[in-house]
Amino acid sequence: MSERLRVIVWNEFRHERDEESIREVYPQGIHAAIASGLQEMDPDLEVSVATLDEPEHGLSEERLERCDVLFWWGHMAHGEVADAVVDRVQKRVLEGMGLVALHSAHYAKIFKRLLGTTCSLTWREADERERLWVCNPGHPIARGIDRCIELEREEMYGEPFGIPAPDEQVFISWFEGGEVFRSGNCYYRGNGRIFYFRPGHEAYPTYFDPQIKRALANAARWAAPAGGRWVDECPNVTEPREPIGKSR
Amino acid sequence: MSERLRVIVWNEFRHERDEESIREVYPQGIHAAIASGLQEMDPDLEVSVATLDEPEHGLSEERLERCDVLFWWGHMAHGEVADAVVDRVQKRVLEGMGLVALHSAHYAKIFKRLLGTTCSLTWREADERERLWVCNPGHPIARGIDRCIELEREEMYGEPFGIPAPDEQVFISWFEGGEVFRSGNCYYRGNGRIFYFRPGHEAYPTYFDPQIKRALANAARWAAPAGGRWVDECPNVTEPREPIGKSR
Amino acid sequence: MSERLRVIVWNEFRHERDEESIREVYPQGIHAAIASGLQEMDPDLEVSVATLDEPEHGLSEERLERCDVLFWWGHMAHGEVADAVVDRVQKRVLEGMGLVALHSAHYAKIFKRLLGTTCSLTWREADERERLWVCNPGHPIARGIDRCIELEREEMYGEPFGIPAPDEQVFISWFEGGEVFRSGNCYYRGNGRIFYFRPGHEAYPTYFDPQIKRALANAARWAAPAGGRWVDECPNVTEPREPIGKSR
Amino acid sequence: MSERLRVIVWNEFRHERDEESIREVYPQGIHAAIASGLQEMDPDLEVSVATLDEPEHGLSEERLERCDVLFWWGHMAHGEVADAVVDRVQKRVLEGMGLVALHSAHYAKIFKRLLGTTCSLTWREADERERLWVCNPGHPIARGIDRCIELEREEMYGEPFGIPAPDEQVFISWFEGGEVFRSGNCYYRGNGRIFYFRPGHEAYPTYFDPQIKRALANAARWAAPAGGRWVDECPNVTEPREPIGKSR
Repeated sequence: MSERLRVIVWNEFRHERDEESIREVYPQGIHAAIASGLQEMDPDLEVSVATLDEPEHGLSEERLERCDVLFWWGHMAHGEVADAVVDRVQKRVLEGMGLVALHSAHYAKIFKRLLGTTCSLTWREADERERLWVCNPGHPIARGIDRCIELEREEMYGEPFGIPAPDEQVFISWFEGGEVFRSGNCYYRGNGRIFYFRPGHEAYPTYFDPQIKRALANAARWAAPAGGRWVDECPNVTEPREPIGKSR
Repeated sequence: MSERLRVIVWNEFRHERDEESIREVYPQGIHAAIASGLQEMDPDLEVSVATLDEPEHGLSEERLERCDVLFWWGHMAHGEVADAVVDRVQKRVLEGMGLVALHSAHYAKIFKRLLGTTCSLTWREADERERLWVCNPGHPIARGIDRCIELEREEMYGEPFGIPAPDEQVFISWFEGGEVFRSGNCYYRGNGRIFYFRPGHEAYPTYFDPQIKRALANAARWAAPAGGRWVDECPNVTEPREPIGKSR
Repeated sequence: MSERLRVIVWNEFRHERDEESIREVYPQGIHAAIASGLQEMDPDLEVSVATLDEPEHGLSEERLERCDVLFWWGHMAHGEVADAVVDRVQKRVLEGMGLVALHSAHYAKIFKRLLGTTCSLTWREADERERLWVCNPGHPIARGIDRCIELEREEMYGEPFGIPAPDEQVFISWFEGGEVFRSGNCYYRGNGRIFYFRPGHEAYPTYFDPQIKRALANAARWAAPAGGRWVDECPNVTEPREPIGKSR
Repeated sequence: MSERLRVIVWNEFRHERDEESIREVYPQGIHAAIASGLQEMDPDLEVSVATLDEPEHGLSEERLERCDVLFWWGHMAHGEVADAVVDRVQKRVLEGMGLVALHSAHYAKIFKRLLGTTCSLTWREADERERLWVCNPGHPIARGIDRCIELEREEMYGEPFGIPAPDEQVFISWFEGGEVFRSGNCYYRGNGRIFYFRPGHEAYPTYFDPQIKRALANAARWAAPAGGRWVDECPNVTEPREPIGKSR
C-alpha cells in the first residue's frame, strides 16, 4: 500500500453546463472524470473536487491546508478566479503542495503567477491526431506509459510556448497538422512541484483514455510534498553566529 | 567601440530624501551614483534615470519602448509601484529588455512577478563584512573582477533565499556574522535576461566601489537584448501545414 | 515502514590503513562509519559496503544490478579506479541508480564523467569551522535538519567550483577563513539522481555528526530510483506511425 | 561590423570520399559546405576547416588555442577520434571555446563527454519531411528564422533523446512519420557554450538550405566566448582571508 495522498481536482465547470455538446462528453463535469480516473488508477489517493462557483471557489484555507496535490482545469473563466484565492494557492504551492495544471490552464492566473512568463502558444481546433512522446522513459510520471500516447482527436497547441525552460521534460507532442509542443513539463518552485500536462480539450473524451489516466495518477504521486513544510517568513536574525568587527 | 545600449536606472528615491544619514551617503540619490558608475565604466552606455514620484514612475510606454536594460532599486515603497507599470515592465522583459534587480528589489513587485516565488530571505543590519565570491570566473558579468569583491560594511542577507534555481550562478556571498547568500543570479525568462545582484544597502557607499561598478556595467552588457524582439500573442493558426484526416 | 532500499557505500579505504592519525578517527574505515550512520537513521535501508581493493572494486555487475543508491568516497586513489567499473556505474546511474558523491569525490572519475566539467575548486587544510546553510528547508534532503549544520573543524573547499549549474541547491557552506562553497547539489541525469555533498575530510569525525548522518540518510531516499527502469538503446524504428510521402 | 570570430569546422570526411551518392551531394565535403555557408551569412567570421585524417585530426594545441567556436560533424568514425584530442577539445570548451555539435555528433566522444549521458535516440532513414519549430523566437540563434524551418527530406531522429535538460530550448522537430525531437539545445558548461543542432544527414543537401545556414551563423555568434578566459586549476589557498580559531 502506498502513502495516502489528499488530492483536490478543481474545475471551472462552465463549458459542461453551458454547452450541450460538451455535456455529452463530460456529463458530470471534467472534474468528475479526472477524479474518477485518479481513483481508479491509484486507490490510495483520497480525491475530492472543487469548482469555481462554490464559495471561495471551493478552496478555503482549511481545504487547501489539508491538500497535498491540486489539479487545475480552467479555460473560459480564468478572469473570474479571485486574486485572493490565487494568492492562497500560490502560498500553498511554495510551501510544498503540488500543482498539476491541465490543458488551457496554461493561461490560468495561478500558472502564470508561478511561472512569471506569458505562457502563450499557438492553437487550432481541427479534430487532429496528437501523439505525446515520452522524453524520459525512466521518469516517475512516465511509469507504465508506452513510448507514446496517441489521441485520435484533440485541439492543437503549438510552439512557441512562452514558458521558462522546464526543469524536466517528460512529454513532447506531435500534431497531425504539422506542429509540436512541450506537453509535459516539470518545475520546482519553492518547496512545491508543478506539472503542466497539455491534453484535455473539453470537446474530446481525453480524460477517459487509460494512458492519460495513468499519467495523471503518476503526476499526483510525483507532485506530492516530499520534504518538510516550510512556511515563508523574512526574519531579522539580529544575533550573528560569529563575532563581528573583531578583525578591524 | 561597443554597441550603444540604452539603460534606465530606476530608484524609488525615498531614503535619500527622508533620512539625513542616507542623504550623506548618496546626496544625489542612489540612482545617480549607479548611473554615474555605469557611464564611467562603459562610455557606450546611454544612461538615464527614473524615480517613483515622477508621472508613471518615469516609466512611460515610450521610454520603456526604447530601453534595452532597466536597473531597479526599491525598498520601503514597493507597495506604491502601480500594478499597471509592473505589467508594462514585465511585458517588456518578456519581449527582450534586460532587468537588473538590486539588493532590496528582491521584494520588488516586478522581481516577484517574474520569478513566481516568495523571494524571502533572512537579514541583519550589523555593519559586517561581505565578500562576494566569483563562482564562474569566465562569466561575462565577472569579467575584470578579482576572485572576490570585499565590502567592509554591508547589510547581511542570508539563506534560505526563496527563488527558483538560478540558470547561472555568478556570485555567492560570505558574511562576517556567519551566513551565506546567492548574491549574483542569472535567469532567462521569455526573451529577457534577469540579473539579481545583492549588495547595495542604502546606508553604505557600496555603489561607489570600483568592482561593484565593474560588475554592474558588465551586467548591463550581459542583460542586453541579444535576439530579435518577440511581441507576445496567442494566435489561432487555422491553416494546418499538413493535411488532417487523410489517414483515417 | 518505508520501502526497503539497497544501498552500497563505496570507499577507496586507503587513508585509514596507511595513516595512523586517520585510523584513529575511522578505525573501521570511512565506509563503515557512513554505513552505520545510514542504518541508524533509517532501519529500512539495506546497507552494504565495497572498497577499491576488492575484485572489481567490489562493484560487480551483479551487485550494481541490485543496487538502488551508491555512495562514493575517494581521494588519493581516483586514478586506480578501473575505467570498466566507471563505465558500469555510469550506465547504472543513467538507468536510474542514485549516486551520492562525497567530499573529495568531486574529482572521482565517475563524478567528472557524469557532469562533464572540471569539478575543480580551491582548498585549504586549516582546522576551520564550516557551516552548511540550508537553501531550501522544504527539500527532502533537508528534512529534520536545522537552519544550518555546524562542523567545528573541517577542510575548506572554496568557489569557483567547476560544475554545471545544479538542478537544485540544498546547501551552501560558509568557512571561518572567509570562503563559500556550493556544498549540497542535486542533478538529474538520464533516469538517475546525483547528489554531491561536500563535508567529510578523512581527518575529522564528520560522519559521526548526527545532522550529517541525517542528511546522508535523506539523500539515500531522495536519490532512490523513482520511475521505471530504462535500459539504453538507439533503435532503428523502420516503421513510421504515419504514412510518408502522401502529400508530395 | 561585428567582432571577428575564429571558427573551425571539423568533419570526419569519410562518407563523402567512400560513397559516390554522398559525394554528389557534398563534392567538397560537408565541412566545405558548412564553412561556405557561415562565410556567406557572416563575413566577419574567420572560418577554417579540419578533418579526421589530418595529423592530430587538424586540431593541434595551437589551432585550438586560437579558436573561438568549433563546429563538429562526425558519424561513422567516432571511435577513431583520439582520446587525447577529445581531452584537448573538452579543456578548451570548459575554458570558454564554443562547440556546435551537428546531427550524428550526438554520439561524438566530445559531446558525450561534455554532457555525461547516453545521448541515444531513435532513428529512421525514410526520406521524410522535417519541420524545426522555433521555441523561442527571441533567442539569438533564431534571429532571422521564420516560425519554422522546413526540410523536404531528412533522416528522422526521435525521442527519447538521452540528454540532460537543455538550459535553453531553441528548436523542436516534427517528423512526417510521426515523431518529435529536441533539435536545437543550448548548454552552459564551464565557461563554454554548447549548441546541439539536429539536421544534416549526409545524404541530403541540408547545409545548403538558407535558413539552416542562417541558424548555423547565429549559433557561431551565440557560442562565442563572452567572458574572460578561465584556465582550470585546483589551488591550495593556504592563506585564509579571515583569522581562524579566534572565537574558540
